[in-house]
Amino acid sequence: MEHKLSLYNSLTRKKELFKPLHSPHVGLYVCGPTVYSEPHLGHVRMAITFDTLFRYLLHLGYKVRYVRNITDVGHLEDEVAGTGEDKISKKAKLEQLEPMEVVQKYKLMFQEVLQILNTLPPSIEPQASGHIIEQQQMIRRIMDNGYAYEVNGSVYFDIETYNKKYTYGQLSGRKVEDMLANTRQLEGQQEKRSPLDFALWKKAGDEHIMRWPSEWSEGFPGWHLECSAMSTKYLGETFDIHGGGLDLLFPHHECEIAQTVASQGKDHVRYWMHNNMITIDGQKMARSLHNFITLKELFTGSHEKLERGYTPMNIRFFLLQAHYRSTLDFSNEALQASEKGLHKLLKAIENLDRIQAGKQSTLSVVPVIEKCFEALNDDLNTPIAIAQLFEGVRLINLLLEGKETLDPTDLERFSTFMKNICYEVLGLQPLEQSLTHDSAEEGLLQILVDLRLDARKNKDFATSDLIRDKLNELGIALKDTKEGTTWERIG
Amino acid sequence: MEHKLSLYNSLTRKKELFKPLHSPHVGLYVCGPTVYSEPHLGHVRMAITFDTLFRYLLHLGYKVRYVRNITDVGHLEDEVAGTGEDKISKKAKLEQLEPMEVVQKYKLMFQEVLQILNTLPPSIEPQASGHIIEQQQMIRRIMDNGYAYEVNGSVYFDIETYNKKYTYGQLSGRKVEDMLANTRQLEGQQEKRSPLDFALWKKAGDEHIMRWPSEWSEGFPGWHLECSAMSTKYLGETFDIHGGGLDLLFPHHECEIAQTVASQGKDHVRYWMHNNMITIDGQKMARSLHNFITLKELFTGSHEKLERGYTPMNIRFFLLQAHYRSTLDFSNEALQASEKGLHKLLKAIENLDRIQAGKQSTLSVVPVIEKCFEALNDDLNTPIAIAQLFEGVRLINLLLEGKETLDPTDLERFSTFMKNICYEVLGLQPLEQSLTHDSAEEGLLQILVDLRLDARKNKDFATSDLIRDKLNELGIALKDTKEGTTWERIG
Repeated sequence: MEHKLSLYNSLTRKKELFKPLHSPHVGLYVCGPTVYSEPHLGHVRMAITFDTLFRYLLHLGYKVRYVRNITDVGHLEDEVAGTGEDKISKKAKLEQLEPMEVVQKYKLMFQEVLQILNTLPPSIEPQASGHIIEQQQMIRRIMDNGYAYEVNGSVYFDIETYNKKYTYGQLSGRKVEDMLANTRQLEGQQEKRSPLDFALWKKAGDEHIMRWPSEWSEGFPGWHLECSAMSTKYLGETFDIHGGGLDLLFPHHECEIAQTVASQGKDHVRYWMHNNMITIDGQKMARSLHNFITLKELFTGSHEKLERGYTPMNIRFFLLQAHYRSTLDFSNEALQASEKGLHKLLKAIENLDRIQAGKQSTLSVVPVIEKCFEALNDDLNTPIAIAQLFEGVRLINLLLEGKETLDPTDLERFSTFMKNICYEVLGLQPLEQSLTHDSAEEGLLQILVDLRLDARKNKDFATSDLIRDKLNELGIALKDTKEGTTWERIG
Repeated sequence: MEHKLSLYNSLTRKKELFKPLHSPHVGLYVCGPTVYSEPHLGHVRMAITFDTLFRYLLHLGYKVRYVRNITDVGHLEDEVAGTGEDKISKKAKLEQLEPMEVVQKYKLMFQEVLQILNTLPPSIEPQASGHIIEQQQMIRRIMDNGYAYEVNGSVYFDIETYNKKYTYGQLSGRKVEDMLANTRQLEGQQEKRSPLDFALWKKAGDEHIMRWPSEWSEGFPGWHLECSAMSTKYLGETFDIHGGGLDLLFPHHECEIAQTVASQGKDHVRYWMHNNMITIDGQKMARSLHNFITLKELFTGSHEKLERGYTPMNIRFFLLQAHYRSTLDFSNEALQASEKGLHKLLKAIENLDRIQAGKQSTLSVVPVIEKCFEALNDDLNTPIAIAQLFEGVRLINLLLEGKETLDPTDLERFSTFMKNICYEVLGLQPLEQSLTHDSAEEGLLQILVDLRLDARKNKDFATSDLIRDKLNELGIALKDTKEGTTWERIG
């Protein structure tokens, strides 16, 4: 593993050389989606960022266990309450809302969208509801260690006691005193000793459908707990990388650290990574601003903010053209500019196979290769890496035009490099897969139909018949109607 | 819900009129795959049989909650042991085999294959490992009721005690005395009071990686338990239909009934349905006979028993041409015969839209519609229903030839019927374009290139330029070379 991959560690706030704990094994945990609504751009940036990291680590030769969870407890309760479904009839099990049906619907939708975006499936996709025992065990350990207390069947994490031995707030750089000063005691938090304390286990009210027995009450785990429990279950007490969206840094990941430290006496994560957010036309995405675009809308163009639909690879490439730690502004102009660049890049890579090797190399391919890897090794700087690929495109064109040549060894090396980075690491798909065949076909047919119409107007029946016959040979029948010429496939 | 759907109930061994407990709701539970190897034909027959039932119930207007489980505990242990992985290093979590990685791999493979075969996703797909608490609760209830006992941290179901109050063996028609007479005491079963007793909870040996704490031991649930626990969790104490492969009838479903009755004092299933097995060239499928064909092999033709690959719809149609309760012999000849029939059927349905309605109907479409529904209502007799669809094909051809006519109302009714049964109920997909898009595109472009060449020869430069410009608008550039005209996509 000869490389100098550095990753920005949100905990230390600096780039650090990446050294796995048990090389060549790498443990990677990423906070996945809460499956109670359609996948939107924010989810996709998280998924593509860490998919690209996963792909790059694999490319470097690591054996990566990539765990991305599915949150299906806790958040759902609000959704259920929000739709007024708490008045559900108790008559028959089948007539009640079953939260797991909601989970199944949106989980499948996520998996489909992420597959279309060419992300690799994680090694394990654990669901929170499937790990209640593990979460209860962790609560027990935290209580035994003195960092949690029970009130009326609910269990809360005790920030004050924790902060006497450890430091709460290290990841977000917040101080407990400041947080307390800025927090008002909210209604309904009477059970907590301090407003900063958070729930590890909540006793279920009557409106909660998802509930499990425990030594404290019939209830459900607090949202932060699942990631502490599932990451250490599948990756060990200490593992390499934990990723997620920047919006999860506080309080979710801060609480995750506190829970894990309180449970096992030490932190579980060596490198914390956070991808930044997406804005639209400079504005934050929010349902209330009507700029909350789902992936389905992006693919089809069916949103008032969209001039047209964009292909999955266009969206993926656009996201990779920004560094994952930068905010990214989403606009039609930016997407369309990105589309042109993507087409140029993929076309050039297709043309690689048409280049003939020369007897000797008139240029060196080393700089472009080295600079590209330097960029990827510099905290996964995909925009710089892509800029180097465009330098590669320039070289390809020089080679195609015969202005420069490469000997067989250099050509092979250069070609492999371009394809590997594009397809394997960045996860882009070859050009022919990116085109929509249907629309091309429609367009070609329309030209032929128009030509035939012109020919008939000019009484050039030889040509009009020729077009009809040739199309017939392709299995396409033309039909002249009052409304114009239509076509259909024949057997 | 006006229909007379009868289903063969494996428990009563007769066809019974289907009356849901809480109409229009229907609860359907099906034993899904154990995800530790590639999907094969047996899995597919199960999935397609109950997918067709699911589709037909939806077509009849029911609101169906379809639960199909994923078995990811228990069976896996053997697999792990079988690969000699019990000697796994304990050094680091990441260096150990993680059974959930195996689960993820094969689960995704199943879901992909079933999607390709156009099965609808179930409403809920619960995993056994995600329902340990529910299984432990059920064991507790069975023990409290006196039908299970603990030995050395394992818990066994007590057949003898159960059989004093209830009857074990009703589903399979076996008698406890006969079973006992035919069973030898096997080694390693010393803990059990009787060889017929089965495990509800097993204390984990050192070689078992999947293990959870319990009041009895750190261990894992017995295989039969998950279906009792998950079916009643999501569908209620009593629900309508429980399906599965015939190989699961004994002991799996027999034990499931015993567990549920012992836990709640009454049976949970109203209609038990079992699909029969698939043979190949008259032989049972078995790995040792080298006739164990996976779906991937079927799609690609890469198995010594296969003359070529078969399309997903070919396989689906072939399975539906046999009644689900018959054994089905799988052969190249049978598949190819089925393929011809499928093509004829789909082609005819495509042609439906070309039929012009007449002023009056010269034939009645009622018999074919009624007979088709009669067949489906007769325990989902798909082969007879398909025979009626072929009668429909005959009518379509008479109508196309103008030998018979239908008035607009009858034509609409007949057309809707044919399409609904084919696409919605049987889950077939419209005839794939006989041409792939790629070759269609190539063919269309070639016609245009030839037309342009003709135009230039005739010095009709207006037309040749028009073709070039129109193609440019579609993003296709023509390039005239010595070898002829080529084209490429431009940005």
